[in-house]
Amino acid sequence: MNKKQRVALLGCGFIGEVHAANLQAHPGAELVWVADAEPARAAAFATRFGARAASVTEAINDGQIDMVLIASATPTHADLLEAAARVGKAIYCEKPVDLSLERARKAVSNVLPYNVPVTVGFNRRFDVSHLQLKQQLRQGRIGSAELIQMVCRSSSMPPLAYLQASGGQMRDQAIHFFDLLRWLTEQEVTEVAAMGAALALPSISEFADVDTSTLLLRLQSGALAQLDNARRTGYGYDERISVMGSDGMLESASQPQRGVSCYQGAQVQQPGLLPDWFSRVQPTYYAHLDAFIRSLNGEQVGDLPGLEDGLRAQAIAEAAVISLAERRFCQVENVLI
Amino acid sequence: MNKKQRVALLGCGFIGEVHAANLQAHPGAELVWVADAEPARAAAFATRFGARAASVTEAINDGQIDMVLIASATPTHADLLEAAARVGKAIYCEKPVDLSLERARKAVSNVLPYNVPVTVGFNRRFDVSHLQLKQQLRQGRIGSAELIQMVCRSSSMPPLAYLQASGGQMRDQAIHFFDLLRWLTEQEVTEVAAMGAALALPSISEFADVDTSTLLLRLQSGALAQLDNARRTGYGYDERISVMGSDGMLESASQPQRGVSCYQGAQVQQPGLLPDWFSRVQPTYYAHLDAFIRSLNGEQVGDLPGLEDGLRAQAIAEAAVISLAERRFCQVENVLI
Amino acid sequence: MNKKQRVALLGCGFIGEVHAANLQAHPGAELVWVADAEPARAAAFATRFGARAASVTEAINDGQIDMVLIASATPTHADLLEAAARVGKAIYCEKPVDLSLERARKAVSNVLPYNVPVTVGFNRRFDVSHLQLKQQLRQGRIGSAELIQMVCRSSSMPPLAYLQASGGQMRDQAIHFFDLLRWLTEQEVTEVAAMGAALALPSISEFADVDTSTLLLRLQSGALAQLDNARRTGYGYDERISVMGSDGMLESASQPQRGVSCYQGAQVQQPGLLPDWFSRVQPTYYAHLDAFIRSLNGEQVGDLPGLEDGLRAQAIAEAAVISLAERRFCQVENVLI
Amino acid sequence: MNKKQRVALLGCGFIGEVHAANLQAHPGAELVWVADAEPARAAAFATRFGARAASVTEAINDGQIDMVLIASATPTHADLLEAAARVGKAIYCEKPVDLSLERARKAVSNVLPYNVPVTVGFNRRFDVSHLQLKQQLRQGRIGSAELIQMVCRSSSMPPLAYLQASGGQMRDQAIHFFDLLRWLTEQEVTEVAAMGAALALPSISEFADVDTSTLLLRLQSGALAQLDNARRTGYGYDERISVMGSDGMLESASQPQRGVSCYQGAQVQQPGLLPDWFSRVQPTYYAHLDAFIRSLNGEQVGDLPGLEDGLRAQAIAEAAVISLAERRFCQVENVLI
Repeated sequence: MNKKQRVALLGCGFIGEVHAANLQAHPGAELVWVADAEPARAAAFATRFGARAASVTEAINDGQIDMVLIASATPTHADLLEAAARVGKAIYCEKPVDLSLERARKAVSNVLPYNVPVTVGFNRRFDVSHLQLKQQLRQGRIGSAELIQMVCRSSSMPPLAYLQASGGQMRDQAIHFFDLLRWLTEQEVTEVAAMGAALALPSISEFADVDTSTLLLRLQSGALAQLDNARRTGYGYDERISVMGSDGMLESASQPQRGVSCYQGAQVQQPGLLPDWFSRVQPTYYAHLDAFIRSLNGEQVGDLPGLEDGLRAQAIAEAAVISLAERRFCQVENVLI
Repeated sequence: MNKKQRVALLGCGFIGEVHAANLQAHPGAELVWVADAEPARAAAFATRFGARAASVTEAINDGQIDMVLIASATPTHADLLEAAARVGKAIYCEKPVDLSLERARKAVSNVLPYNVPVTVGFNRRFDVSHLQLKQQLRQGRIGSAELIQMVCRSSSMPPLAYLQASGGQMRDQAIHFFDLLRWLTEQEVTEVAAMGAALALPSISEFADVDTSTLLLRLQSGALAQLDNARRTGYGYDERISVMGSDGMLESASQPQRGVSCYQGAQVQQPGLLPDWFSRVQPTYYAHLDAFIRSLNGEQVGDLPGLEDGLRAQAIAEAAVISLAERRFCQVENVLI
Repeated sequence: MNKKQRVALLGCGFIGEVHAANLQAHPGAELVWVADAEPARAAAFATRFGARAASVTEAINDGQIDMVLIASATPTHADLLEAAARVGKAIYCEKPVDLSLERARKAVSNVLPYNVPVTVGFNRRFDVSHLQLKQQLRQGRIGSAELIQMVCRSSSMPPLAYLQASGGQMRDQAIHFFDLLRWLTEQEVTEVAAMGAALALPSISEFADVDTSTLLLRLQSGALAQLDNARRTGYGYDERISVMGSDGMLESASQPQRGVSCYQGAQVQQPGLLPDWFSRVQPTYYAHLDAFIRSLNGEQVGDLPGLEDGLRAQAIAEAAVISLAERRFCQVENVLI
Repeated sequence: MNKKQRVALLGCGFIGEVHAANLQAHPGAELVWVADAEPARAAAFATRFGARAASVTEAINDGQIDMVLIASATPTHADLLEAAARVGKAIYCEKPVDLSLERARKAVSNVLPYNVPVTVGFNRRFDVSHLQLKQQLRQGRIGSAELIQMVCRSSSMPPLAYLQASGGQMRDQAIHFFDLLRWLTEQEVTEVAAMGAALALPSISEFADVDTSTLLLRLQSGALAQLDNARRTGYGYDERISVMGSDGMLESASQPQRGVSCYQGAQVQQPGLLPDWFSRVQPTYYAHLDAFIRSLNGEQVGDLPGLEDGLRAQAIAEAAVISLAERRFCQVENVLI
């Protein structure tokens, strides 16, 4: 039988809670330490999840800890990643490694020599529908991918403070789909063109952000992809991916709520989409964590997003930021160098 | 090349119009004569469809006529059927042969000796979806049929005069589904139980009719079927058949209109069902006519509803009428004798 | 703040596990005792759910216990119900009170004088879609109910031993829908007609059971209902309710799995229905328990199924059994007396 | 009562046939002359549709003709348009006016002074679903348009000869959606970015064409649009438009065929999309013709596509061609000048 992974969780915010509950439920994990920039928050959190509070340093350096889960504020990720790697821990790190691609790249090159298992929080790879899509695509069910369409539309505007710290729609929201695109097609993105606008909250254009954007992406193979992003819809959470291949189309569609339909006159009123991103994404956190723990136990687990994946997705985001700002096509390789 | 069937159309009402337009469009038919109880109506009709008006007798007895299409008032069907058979015409006869099962039976036994091709107007056998269902069922795609569910709900109440002359919901509306059930399963119905009520138009209970009814039907094979009928819905035309077999289910579902969907808040507003029975059934008249004409040209055409089919469906209707009235299970064989 | 309900759980089988997990998760409940006919099973169960094992008698009679949850074998329900009522406990009793309507009636009349809160396990009333249907029906959204259609089809045949002890398809499976029908329409069922057959497992006809059945039910108001039941489909779990009213239709449809669609040639392959009844019904156990606990805390909670509801649903089942066997319409009131 | 429009139809190819059948069926039109580059073809065509054959010149110049319908080869459109305008005819001209934007612009400036009614064949404006979308958008049902998504995917590759004469995917296929976008949003397109590839038929890259393409379009209002085009899918005809507004989304979706669904195991097999573009588009030809005829009779008919619309859509196509070739964003206004 596998030993339980003893885990230190860094960061007790919203996403820290999600991970804490999953760690508590996972038979192969034991949540030992929780740490937070605010010690009182960590203490309350520890009580709630049957763990103990510690400082970040103590938690990382405890010799009995096998795995560190980094769910703290984005600017701390790179340092914590380096610190945890130095002491040989397995690491689950929320994305991104750093908002600065340069700092992220440096962190990755610092971490790689320690050869510790690391996964980056691109949890959407574990969405059941997207997984089925990838599996059927690999099996050649629709031939080779030619035209990929992705939609990523949140139901409601995040708070302004969140937006200001987010790095912008490309680095914060679209980045998940840059990773999904690479993962699904097993192709690199070579060229990006992006248009964006601040339509829902025009004031965010003050810090050069957009809330509505559309992108074209060219893949190595010559296939083409589209992505659109919106920060708020008036109709729930709309996440979709379709892949047209040479012999058919696979579609991982938006998901409706369960409920009753009303047929009346010339119309049918049906349940709308899931109310928010979390309703859709919630199960993927557990699935990602579970895959990582199984890989630590020596199981072959496909497609865990690693550090290199984090850098690649960030590079596409940087290219998109340039395209948005300068109204020109941007080669991803120019950003990568 | 096949010769054109020269046709006499009897009856210039609504359903006569449908047939006239189809005859005009069919490359294998030539509408020669039209006849109606009201000669003026026949004359106008003739002009409109490029035919000539005649009396019923002239039309039937014209030696150049190959085929008689009986679309006149129900009480005239049996006599016209006999008359057309006597002079050796091929006959397309609207259902029912007669509202009285006894008269219908006698007409059939009078007609059979002439050995003329006859089809009875169970045009719903030619619905594209129902046809696919039958085809897949025959191919054994879902194993053997075990549980059949049928829904037959019109969108709006017919006029009272129509109802009074219709023979009641079993003989007028449900009868199409009695035929469909036999045709789909290739099984005879042995037993019927029916409940009914006059909910939409209570006054029709004065002549022992109902506008809402539910039925159980037992088939020879032991399989079970359900049917519900309504004279008016508040939501369009709802016709559905599903067959659960030992290895899956086939469904010929209600058909929505084409149109736009509106996603808003927690709901989606979608196009409702087809507005009325004719929107759904219209193409089946042509398809039925076409199959009959092809059979006259010697082609093998499957499942043309014949006189025997007319009698069988009527017998089920009679059993249902008895079950409705007497609140008891009714064996179809008792009615047939 | 409300005090926690201290609970004794009787029965450590499959459904006992479901309740134990829900009690553990519910903030207003504390699982104190678990009891089972096999003490070793109770002991293991206690360890797993953080409770203590006891004999049934000890568990019921502990003065600190507020609520007894009866999830033991059906033949023990009536005795345990009476025993728990005698010592003044609130009771959540799995359905049915007893397979014998007479014994059930006696138990109910024994229990009523103690005036303890009791709910019977018709958990499907707490299905989110069915609840929406009822709510919209009450609000008059489609006018008055005229034609109700219910489908209750399990995905796979239960073990023979289960079937032999179940009381038959009417008392075991259809009974949930007898309750749903009364609850949704707020009408009593007056008359039943049923047809059934042992098609999937013919051997069960040896003990007069069926695995496929269809029913007609007449309601006080004159409205009509249909129900069909199957013990196994080849296509997952199919539970549906639709209500046609004078002004439209409400539909609580079968629920598909989440997943990917494949568009190819002239077909689309989509995710099928939920794999089994439990996938659909699971959340209703918690919701029912939660409603009962809230009612114990003095909250107004609508439509908790009570002892009288249990008897009424059983009476409809008895009428259906008679109709099935004797091939006749059966008045429910004759069974009730 | 309105007088019948006496029509000369120029061009007896596939699209000429469509128009001839519609003219024959339309109560307000009379097909008088048909003309074609091949006189024999025109003669046969005339017989078939009850018209007379003439030379193009005769047909246009006959003083009794009210309306000329130009359905001949693209390179002849501009000349015929000018010729018909000179003699004061109403003109229905298939798109495009000319493959060369310059020639088209000249033709338009030559025609405008004659002040004759002209409509250009952007018949997709008359698609019932798209019309509903526009109507609901105008009524403000989803607030202001922010993000438009359009899909235009034909089911099968046209013949190589067609492609060589077509002007390329932007000018031939995408152009319909450039018009739809302007019509739906009532906004001009200001900027285009396009990526394309010859994936289905790589040899077409020899004449600089693509068969798969994706586009970004910016509108005056700041709203963003996407379009993707494919020359062949493996799954039928896929045409969709969705408009996300500030308060919801309107969707004119791909249309499935009618047919039967098969539920089996964990999947449902449903009818796929319409088999080809013509199945979807067919009714719009009649609707467009009808609207034009009604406008000639003095009725107020909204949104008939005119000459200016033709030029605007062509200008967007030119900008897209430049963007495709030069991998840069392209301003439409630079092309227009």
